[in-house]
Amino acid sequence: MRTLVELIAAKRDGHALTEAEIHHFVGAFIAGTLTDYQMTAFLMAVFFRGLDDAETVALTEAMLHSGSVVDLSRVAGTKVDKHSTGGVGDKVSICLAPLVAACGVPVPMVVGRGLGHTGGTVDKLEAIPGFRTDLTTVEFARIVGEVGTCIIGPNQEIAPADRLMYALRDVTGTVESIPLIVASILSKKLAEGIDGLVLDVKVGGGAFMKNETSARELASKLVAVGTRAGKQVVAWLTRMDAPLGVAVGNANEVREALGVLRGEGPADLVECTLTLGAEMLVLGRKASDAAQAMAILRKALADGSAARVMEKMIEAQSGNARVVERPSLIDVADCVVDVNAPRDGFITSVDAHEIGLVAVAMGAGRTRADGVIDPGVGLAIDAKPGRSVNQGQRVARLFVRERAVGEALAQRVAGAFRYGDVATPSPPLAFARITAEHVYRSCNADVMMGHRTQ
Amino acid sequence: MRTLVELIAAKRDGHALTEAEIHHFVGAFIAGTLTDYQMTAFLMAVFFRGLDDAETVALTEAMLHSGSVVDLSRVAGTKVDKHSTGGVGDKVSICLAPLVAACGVPVPMVVGRGLGHTGGTVDKLEAIPGFRTDLTTVEFARIVGEVGTCIIGPNQEIAPADRLMYALRDVTGTVESIPLIVASILSKKLAEGIDGLVLDVKVGGGAFMKNETSARELASKLVAVGTRAGKQVVAWLTRMDAPLGVAVGNANEVREALGVLRGEGPADLVECTLTLGAEMLVLGRKASDAAQAMAILRKALADGSAARVMEKMIEAQSGNARVVERPSLIDVADCVVDVNAPRDGFITSVDAHEIGLVAVAMGAGRTRADGVIDPGVGLAIDAKPGRSVNQGQRVARLFVRERAVGEALAQRVAGAFRYGDVATPSPPLAFARITAEHVYRSCNADVMMGHRTQ
Repeated sequence: MRTLVELIAAKRDGHALTEAEIHHFVGAFIAGTLTDYQMTAFLMAVFFRGLDDAETVALTEAMLHSGSVVDLSRVAGTKVDKHSTGGVGDKVSICLAPLVAACGVPVPMVVGRGLGHTGGTVDKLEAIPGFRTDLTTVEFARIVGEVGTCIIGPNQEIAPADRLMYALRDVTGTVESIPLIVASILSKKLAEGIDGLVLDVKVGGGAFMKNETSARELASKLVAVGTRAGKQVVAWLTRMDAPLGVAVGNANEVREALGVLRGEGPADLVECTLTLGAEMLVLGRKASDAAQAMAILRKALADGSAARVMEKMIEAQSGNARVVERPSLIDVADCVVDVNAPRDGFITSVDAHEIGLVAVAMGAGRTRADGVIDPGVGLAIDAKPGRSVNQGQRVARLFVRERAVGEALAQRVAGAFRYGDVATPSPPLAFARITAEHVYRSCNADVMMGHRTQ
Repeated sequence: MRTLVELIAAKRDGHALTEAEIHHFVGAFIAGTLTDYQMTAFLMAVFFRGLDDAETVALTEAMLHSGSVVDLSRVAGTKVDKHSTGGVGDKVSICLAPLVAACGVPVPMVVGRGLGHTGGTVDKLEAIPGFRTDLTTVEFARIVGEVGTCIIGPNQEIAPADRLMYALRDVTGTVESIPLIVASILSKKLAEGIDGLVLDVKVGGGAFMKNETSARELASKLVAVGTRAGKQVVAWLTRMDAPLGVAVGNANEVREALGVLRGEGPADLVECTLTLGAEMLVLGRKASDAAQAMAILRKALADGSAARVMEKMIEAQSGNARVVERPSLIDVADCVVDVNAPRDGFITSVDAHEIGLVAVAMGAGRTRADGVIDPGVGLAIDAKPGRSVNQGQRVARLFVRERAVGEALAQRVAGAFRYGDVATPSPPLAFARITAEHVYRSCNADVMMGHRTQ
C-alpha cells in the first residue's frame, strides 16, 4: 500500500486511488495520524483532479463509516429522504417531511444549520417554541417509527469525518468541488438509514450552482454515486433565481410551511413540495407514478392528515404543537418596514442572493459557524416575478426589532427588484429530472461517441 | 484587500496575487492567523497554477523578511555565494568557499542538512572534529569579514517562513513546484546579505531535476527572480547521473574536498569547482572573464592560499584545522568491503540515485528530518563511467562499522554499475550556462512568437 503522502501525490498527479486506499486515508485522518494540512492538500488536489465515480463512492462510504448508520430496521416501509442543495426561502423540508410521512412513507431527516446567504432547516425549526433538534440517533429512530418522520440536526454519530473535512474546506477554498460536495451530502444522508433519496438541486443566482451545466453535473454525480452505493436516487433541478415562496427568515418561513400543511401557501412553494413529494411516494412504493402520487399528497393536505403528523412530530420533539393551528404562536419581529414599487410595471426578477444577504445582515443567518441568530427577523417578498404592480404598491416587508435597522436595509431590498414594461412568462420551477437511467444512458452515449465524462 | 480565504481561492482559480497580498498572506502565516492547512491549500494551488515572476519575487521577499538579512555592510567587496540543487557526492561547497575567498571574493554561505538520497553540507562539515555550524548570524558576519568565508547551518533568524513552509511541503506533496523551489532557495540565499549568486542546477537520475527541460526551467526562473530581486545571478546546468567525484558519505567527502585544496581530487569534482568558482570571481569583480578567473583559482590552489583560508575558517568555527594537512584526522569507518567488476569491459554508468540510497541505508544520510547519521560511513566509487576494467577489479568500496552491513549492501552497489564493450565518451559535466541576458532574450523571443512562458 502506498504511504499517505504518496496517496496525496498520486491524486495530485491525476491517478485514481483504490477503495482500500481511500478508506485508509480517511481512517488515518479520523485516527489523527493524517494531519489537517495533509487532508487539505488532498482536498485541493481533488479540487483540481476530481474523483471518478468509484472513488467518490469509496470516499462517501469511508466518511459514512467514520460514524454510525441509524438503525431503522424496526421501522416498516421504504424509508425515503429529500435533500436540497440550498436556496433562499427554501422551507420545503418542513412541510414535505410530515406530508410524505402522512402518506405512509417514513422520512428520517438529518438537516443542517444555515451558513452564508442560505438558511438551514435546524435554525428554522428552532423558531417553534420548545422544539429540539439535538436528539440522539436512538430517539430519532424511535420517533421515525412512531410518528413517521423526525427532523434533527447533525450530531457526533453522523459522519464525523464529513464535519471535520467540511470545516477545513470552508476556509481553504475547497468547497466548490463536485465530488467533495457529493461525498459530503451522501455520507450524511446514507447515515440516516434510508432506502431512497430525492435531491433538489437548486440552480440560479440564489443557489450554490449558478448555472444549469454545473447543476446538471452535480445532480448526475449525486444520482450515479448514490445508486452505486445501493440507494434509489432521483434528482430534480429547480430554479433559485428568486426566493422560494414569500417568507425569508426563520419564524416566518416556518409559519409559511405550516400554511402549506393547511392547504395554503404560495404557488411556487406548493409546486416544489408536491413535485418532490411525488418522487418520494413513488420511491417509497406508495404510488406507481407521479400523477397517482400527486392525488395522494393533495388528499393528505386536504384531510388534515399531514398537519396531524406535523403536530405529532413537534410534540415528539418537545415543541408546542399548537403552532400548527395557530402559527402566530411563533414569534415574528413586529416592527415592519415596507418596500414599495418605484414605478408601474411588471416585476421581472428578484435577486435571491441579495435577499439572502440582507436576511443575514438582519440577523436571520450567520456569517460564521458559531454566529447567533434571531429567529424572529426576516422578510416577505410580497410581489414575485411576473406580478404587475403600480407605483407605490408594497412589494416587500422587512420584519425587524428596530425600525432604523429595517430602514437601512430597505434600500438593498428595493435594489433586488427589477421592473419591466411587459410580463415575461415564468419558466417552470422544477425543470429537469435526472434518474439513474438517464445517467446510465448518457454515459453509454458518451462512450459510444468516444467521450468520457471522467 | 481580499481576505486570506479569497486569496487562496484566487490562486486556485489561476489569478495573480499582488505583491501586497502575498506579503499579507505570508505575514498572517508567521503571525499564526493563517493556519497550516490554509497555507497548504495555497501551496497545492500554486503547485497547479504556478506563480509568475512578479509573484515569485514577492513570495521570496516575504519569506526573506520573515527573518532578518545578515548585515555584511562592514565586509568590503562584492559578496557572492553558490547554491547547488543537490546531488550525490556533491562536496563542492566545502572546497569552493575557501578557494573563492582566497581569491578575494567574500563568500557568506548558509547551507542545509541532508534529507533523502542527497547529502547536506552541514552534515559533511560536522565530520571535522569540533567544527560548529550553529553560529549566530553576528558570529557568521564577523568570520566572513575576518576569514573571507564562513559556512553555517540554518537558524531561527534566516527565513523562518521557509522552514515552516518547507516542513508542510515535505509531507503534503507540494515539494515539486518550480516557483516554490525558487522562493525557498532564494529567500535563504538572499538572507545571507549577498550581492551575487552562482547556481549549480543538477540534472539527471541522482538529482532533483531528472531531465534537462525541467532543470532549464528551474534555472531560468531562479535567474529571472534573483535578478528581479536585485542580485547578479548566473546558473549552470551540471550532470548528476553518476556521483560527483569518488567519495560519497560525510567524512570521506570532506577528505576529498580537502584534497582539491591541495591540488588533488577527481577530475569531475575539480572541473565543477573551477567552473562555478570562475563565475563567482567574475561576479565578484576579481576577474573579467572565465579564463582569467580560472588562472587565478589555479594559482590559489597551487600556492596553498586556498588551503590556508580553509584552515582559518575551520579554526574560526572551533574545528581542528590540522585536518587540512592531515585529512586522516577525520574518522572514516575502517571496515572496508570491496565491490569488484563481474566482467571485463567499460563502465557505462553508475546510478547516483541508487548509490545515494545505499549511503542512507549505511547511516550516512537520513530519511526523516530528526534522523541521526554516522559521519564516518560512506563509499568510494573507484571506477567511474568511461573507465575500462578487468573482471575482478575493484570498482567501489563501502566503509562500514560492521562487515555484515557492508556485505549486505555491496550487492546493491554492484547493481548500480552498468558495463559495456566499448568506451562511450562522457559528455561535459557543466553543459549549459544561463544568465539574465539569456532569460531576457528568450522571453522576448517568446513574446515575438506570440507565446508567453507564464
